[in-house]
Amino acid sequence: MKAVVLEKKGVINVREVPDPGKPGPGELLIAPHTVGICGSDLHYYTHGRVGKYIVEQPMILGHEASGTVLEVGEGVTGFAVGDRIAMEPGIPDPSSRASRLGMYNVDPAVRFFATPPIDGCLSDKVIHPAAFTYKLPDNVTYGEGALLEPLAVGMWSATKAHIKPGDIGVVTGSGTIGLMTAASAMAGGCSKVLVSDVSDVKLGLAAQIPGVVPVDIRKEDLIERVLQETGGWGADRVFEASGNPKSYDNLWKLGAPGNTTVIVGIPAEGTVPVDITEVQARETQIENIFRYANVYQKAIDLVAAGKINLKPFISKTYSMQESKDAFDRVAEGHPEDVKIQITVD
Amino acid sequence: MKAVVLEKKGVINVREVPDPGKPGPGELLIAPHTVGICGSDLHYYTHGRVGKYIVEQPMILGHEASGTVLEVGEGVTGFAVGDRIAMEPGIPDPSSRASRLGMYNVDPAVRFFATPPIDGCLSDKVIHPAAFTYKLPDNVTYGEGALLEPLAVGMWSATKAHIKPGDIGVVTGSGTIGLMTAASAMAGGCSKVLVSDVSDVKLGLAAQIPGVVPVDIRKEDLIERVLQETGGWGADRVFEASGNPKSYDNLWKLGAPGNTTVIVGIPAEGTVPVDITEVQARETQIENIFRYANVYQKAIDLVAAGKINLKPFISKTYSMQESKDAFDRVAEGHPEDVKIQITVD
Amino acid sequence: MKAVVLEKKGVINVREVPDPGKPGPGELLIAPHTVGICGSDLHYYTHGRVGKYIVEQPMILGHEASGTVLEVGEGVTGFAVGDRIAMEPGIPDPSSRASRLGMYNVDPAVRFFATPPIDGCLSDKVIHPAAFTYKLPDNVTYGEGALLEPLAVGMWSATKAHIKPGDIGVVTGSGTIGLMTAASAMAGGCSKVLVSDVSDVKLGLAAQIPGVVPVDIRKEDLIERVLQETGGWGADRVFEASGNPKSYDNLWKLGAPGNTTVIVGIPAEGTVPVDITEVQARETQIENIFRYANVYQKAIDLVAAGKINLKPFISKTYSMQESKDAFDRVAEGHPEDVKIQITVD
Amino acid sequence: MKAVVLEKKGVINVREVPDPGKPGPGELLIAPHTVGICGSDLHYYTHGRVGKYIVEQPMILGHEASGTVLEVGEGVTGFAVGDRIAMEPGIPDPSSRASRLGMYNVDPAVRFFATPPIDGCLSDKVIHPAAFTYKLPDNVTYGEGALLEPLAVGMWSATKAHIKPGDIGVVTGSGTIGLMTAASAMAGGCSKVLVSDVSDVKLGLAAQIPGVVPVDIRKEDLIERVLQETGGWGADRVFEASGNPKSYDNLWKLGAPGNTTVIVGIPAEGTVPVDITEVQARETQIENIFRYANVYQKAIDLVAAGKINLKPFISKTYSMQESKDAFDRVAEGHPEDVKIQITVD
Repeated sequence: MKAVVLEKKGVINVREVPDPGKPGPGELLIAPHTVGICGSDLHYYTHGRVGKYIVEQPMILGHEASGTVLEVGEGVTGFAVGDRIAMEPGIPDPSSRASRLGMYNVDPAVRFFATPPIDGCLSDKVIHPAAFTYKLPDNVTYGEGALLEPLAVGMWSATKAHIKPGDIGVVTGSGTIGLMTAASAMAGGCSKVLVSDVSDVKLGLAAQIPGVVPVDIRKEDLIERVLQETGGWGADRVFEASGNPKSYDNLWKLGAPGNTTVIVGIPAEGTVPVDITEVQARETQIENIFRYANVYQKAIDLVAAGKINLKPFISKTYSMQESKDAFDRVAEGHPEDVKIQITVD
Repeated sequence: MKAVVLEKKGVINVREVPDPGKPGPGELLIAPHTVGICGSDLHYYTHGRVGKYIVEQPMILGHEASGTVLEVGEGVTGFAVGDRIAMEPGIPDPSSRASRLGMYNVDPAVRFFATPPIDGCLSDKVIHPAAFTYKLPDNVTYGEGALLEPLAVGMWSATKAHIKPGDIGVVTGSGTIGLMTAASAMAGGCSKVLVSDVSDVKLGLAAQIPGVVPVDIRKEDLIERVLQETGGWGADRVFEASGNPKSYDNLWKLGAPGNTTVIVGIPAEGTVPVDITEVQARETQIENIFRYANVYQKAIDLVAAGKINLKPFISKTYSMQESKDAFDRVAEGHPEDVKIQITVD
Repeated sequence: MKAVVLEKKGVINVREVPDPGKPGPGELLIAPHTVGICGSDLHYYTHGRVGKYIVEQPMILGHEASGTVLEVGEGVTGFAVGDRIAMEPGIPDPSSRASRLGMYNVDPAVRFFATPPIDGCLSDKVIHPAAFTYKLPDNVTYGEGALLEPLAVGMWSATKAHIKPGDIGVVTGSGTIGLMTAASAMAGGCSKVLVSDVSDVKLGLAAQIPGVVPVDIRKEDLIERVLQETGGWGADRVFEASGNPKSYDNLWKLGAPGNTTVIVGIPAEGTVPVDITEVQARETQIENIFRYANVYQKAIDLVAAGKINLKPFISKTYSMQESKDAFDRVAEGHPEDVKIQITVD
Repeated sequence: MKAVVLEKKGVINVREVPDPGKPGPGELLIAPHTVGICGSDLHYYTHGRVGKYIVEQPMILGHEASGTVLEVGEGVTGFAVGDRIAMEPGIPDPSSRASRLGMYNVDPAVRFFATPPIDGCLSDKVIHPAAFTYKLPDNVTYGEGALLEPLAVGMWSATKAHIKPGDIGVVTGSGTIGLMTAASAMAGGCSKVLVSDVSDVKLGLAAQIPGVVPVDIRKEDLIERVLQETGGWGADRVFEASGNPKSYDNLWKLGAPGNTTVIVGIPAEGTVPVDITEVQARETQIENIFRYANVYQKAIDLVAAGKINLKPFISKTYSMQESKDAFDRVAEGHPEDVKIQITVD
């Protein structure tokens, strides 16, 4: 079969690789249809590593994927050949302590697509556990199905924020994850979500989400705007989605007494300064998230219901043969791009 | 000033009553504008009592009210003469143990409009604490402002249901409270809410809430439909809003493992049968609600944002002089009526 | 190997059965040491069934067990031959939706020891997954290890009660589960737990748990006593552990505003009457439990720390050969017996 | 009447001050009996300020107080002259938004004893609201009653930590607040609490709390010890109680996946570095506390029940006349001192 292989840092080939064989018990053989390019895919391409994960041998790229069921393994119920599906890319050890607690996402044994040395799914075929595969309703496209993965991060953020109906939210940063978080927070019960950024294009994308108030922080003070929009009380739910350490200077003053602030963005430096006086004065609850758990089906349901519209965020689609161009486009960093996807032909 | 007075069971007069005087510290003098008729108002009219509360002297009716600020008491900030407002009708003892815990709604000392011997607010003027008065944005009408009270019950139900983004809900009963609950659950994060009833008219009203799936239980089995709509898993959040003891026969089978079921409706008989085997098998969490707390502002924000549309639920509006006609209309029980309101001229 | 076999209703034999063979990957071969007799074991013996589970072929009894590791399966870490252990008797499908959510106890696919047609562990050897096996510290005896199973029910009740430090609890019923619940609630943060019963012997057993206030409801009114012990406020956490439908007459009046009431006992009739007015007036949160999840290790830690003393509750120990006598003793229903155990020789 | 007055930085006089007069409605006139010296009292004495609060006029010191009711104001129920009581020192605006939500401790309008310009209660008489006054059982001494205030901080930390029965905790820092937190966490459900410090004397004090494991971090690595005590999993509940920024270097590695870390200590510098990678990898929930709310009664109940023993922490008691000596003793910083108290003669 064919696959998009990162041979080593900077070298992508679309070439023949060994076929994955037959699905085992509880597994599905899947033909990926659409695969999105994530920041981590790009980073492996441009830097050959992400943190402690290093590309030491050729690796198939891609983990944001939708597709079609080709073959159903023994004991699998609820799936048939031809089903349109999305794949949750992280597979935990189901008997680990974290998994037994329902926190399978923080299980250290998780195997995650396209995280060395695990192959990704930008290929003609892939084997995946049925328990982490989700059927797509007819009104959810393959492109939207592949976008469920970054949406799941936003959904998990919104879930961990403990939103109450009518809460007011703030998201710092209008990149892909900021947009997914804002859309999830609106669908998840907020009456209004302020999204901050310094790019007109990014803020224009945020403004396409009904209920979002874009705030250009080059032009106005975010704290003042939040206080104005909340009658001086502060936001009920705050999401740091920029990964920018500077964001932390004002972050804690955005929240109301008793607010929950969710740290979604991953700062490159790792460590950021936190003003304990500010978080204590408000008794801020800080939730920190790692990927997501148990949100794929709910994300699908919100997209199918029309409460989350992903279409504006699929920026450009390439064929599998054009994969290198697709990655290069992402590497160029066009502000108007939210998600670049590749279709497997 | 003039007021709508329930002289005794069955006798309503619009007549002169003593003026409430000047607002004290922390209080506002308010001119009510629109007042909705609630089931309890009606019950005092038709039966002279609701449970242990008995009409033993003439009582001004009405507790679902919007209005305009006439005068601002000492120490009040944030309000000015002329402000358009809604009033939360229950005033607790702020230093009670329940109030200190944030559960002011279950404080036994609560004084509630139009609950004998406390007067209601269907009158030219009323004094109300600023802490329980909320400003209406320009795009929220007085009629919607008066509907906030029953909406608050729905909002509190949705809040107590601990909805996670994308959850699927079921509401049994499509009366006023069922509709308010369904609207709140959708705005509060559900991807879909099934609403059951036996009346075409009532189901038609529910169907006007985006995301609601009306289920006519004369024609189809609610449990089967819920399982079908949830991939066999059951609903994440269940709301009993009919107050009908028969509803409990199937209620516990609607929910998924770990579901929360909120008891919103008040059964006339008080006691209902609960199948413990069913709630234990699913580890159902049952939340029971009494009025509401801390939801008025959030309800206003959702209405102002357009996430809850109350307009279809204002069925007919009468003038103060026509108050008796308004109450008689409610007494007749028209299925197409959701809320009958009276404007204070 | 030898095992205690329920041939059919009323007939127990200690006899040879096939050896379980070698442990597979992730499994342990275990020599059970002490096995307690549970109400369900007894019921299979005396009635041949428990609810929908019917003894249709010979079944090895027993599910409350401690033992010693005989052999370690492939891939198992953290266990060595000779380790003293306790076994959690319910094994879920780890990839089910309930398991992925951390609610493996409500997974319908759970295989539970001595629940037809699954064999129990009152035998010389048994194979068990390492993920559901827990090491016993040196200061926890095999007898205590076997008592962890009913304690786990109490621990789960206390966990689901959301106890805050210093809360006051009430447990209705001082049977085995009531005692385990009271001990867990005290260890789990309560300052005081009232335990009601109508038996002097049972109340005397409850009184051995430090912090427990026994209440003989033949002699005093439980509601009055609770109000007296809580300054008129009511109990923060209430546990129904009698399974007696009569208990529900007063149950809801025991709790304070905002209390959590946990339904632990399983009423024989299934259905009980619930006064909705009472639970709504207090906004009682009702939690319903089914077995337990993720509490074995914590139960061991509390026993090892001396915060829970199980020794008074091991009433009598029989040898494997005397198993029939042991079951007959339980069938006789001695009020002074809490737990009868059998040691596998 | 006589009072202990901080005239200005460094100058304490025991002298005549005006009598507080009669208690108003809802208030009590109280004769303070025992008053503890807090770090903030000391700081006003030695520095003339704490943060933004500056001593600009003579102020009566003291906020950790027990006493006796001298006179009962109008409308107060539940108190009689002669009652032995403890006073919660912070009085919120009961109609503020924070108070209505049950978070009265973060109400910016709180009036707190001995926080300029509000006087404290180290005086012959003081007027206090009955709603924030708590009766002491006969077996709780005045000295223990005065220690309830720092205990309340520990209780609130343990409450916000969402402890489940049997959890394992870690407290960094064995000062007064660390000890109170460790005692609260043990009473509040932990099976074991590790307490770290660099002082033998401080660790010896911690070791007097049953269940506490003192860890001398000059001699052993705290992370390693925590992993060893938790089977490699990490602590379920972590409390930063040192206020030392260095503590944050290792803090996030102490917790298990899904742990709650409560920030109790107030770092002098305000801002500390937080490694986001570590808290995200574990999905650490960080709770930040400010004083306490709704825990006084529960603290009293735990002390009365013997689950918290405060006696080892009352280090030395001075008479009112010796107040300056008492403050100087605190200023000297004896490691063996936990709490120095003054009795009002």
